[in-house]
Amino acid sequence: MSDHTIDGWTEQTRPPALFRRFAFERYAQTRAFLDRIAAVQDELGLAPQNISFGTTYVNITIGGEAGVSDAERELARRITAAAQSLDQAA
Amino acid sequence: MSDHTIDGWTEQTRPPALFRRFAFERYAQTRAFLDRIAAVQDELGLAPQNISFGTTYVNITIGGEAGVSDAERELARRITAAAQSLDQAA
Repeated sequence: MSDHTIDGWTEQTRPPALFRRFAFERYAQTRAFLDRIAAVQDELGLAPQNISFGTTYVNITIGGEAGVSDAERELARRITAAAQSLDQAA
Repeated sequence: MSDHTIDGWTEQTRPPALFRRFAFERYAQTRAFLDRIAAVQDELGLAPQNISFGTTYVNITIGGEAGVSDAERELARRITAAAQSLDQAA
């Protein structure tokens, strides 16, 4: 179930989480995006609950049973910015 | 449904795929493992269908509709070897 979105993310309620799928044209872009996510994680000291990826897509779930914290919303915004700096396909 | 295993991988038939979950004690190990998988992919010119990870686990699915090729079985073996060279928790 979606309540509202933040920066293109779907907000799910059961369990509480932010979800977004990022698609890329080439594997090199996907890899670059994953590296940037890792850098953002290191900087914020916070990680997505799950990252699921293939050669040209990355699905990201942020949050957990306790809900989505303000810090996790910042993580989502930073990941969005990282994607926007790449040539995203969709 | 599992038919048989190869190096600890579960062989699924619908759709045909190899699956294995790797667990680690710390995020640093998970990250190191992901980096090694990327290196193996580059070397073999072949990628898993999906990699799904959190801070201390990595689930890998190899294969596709056309079945699991010999090259993909080699990919699974190489990924297994990469994990074994790390301090794997389970």
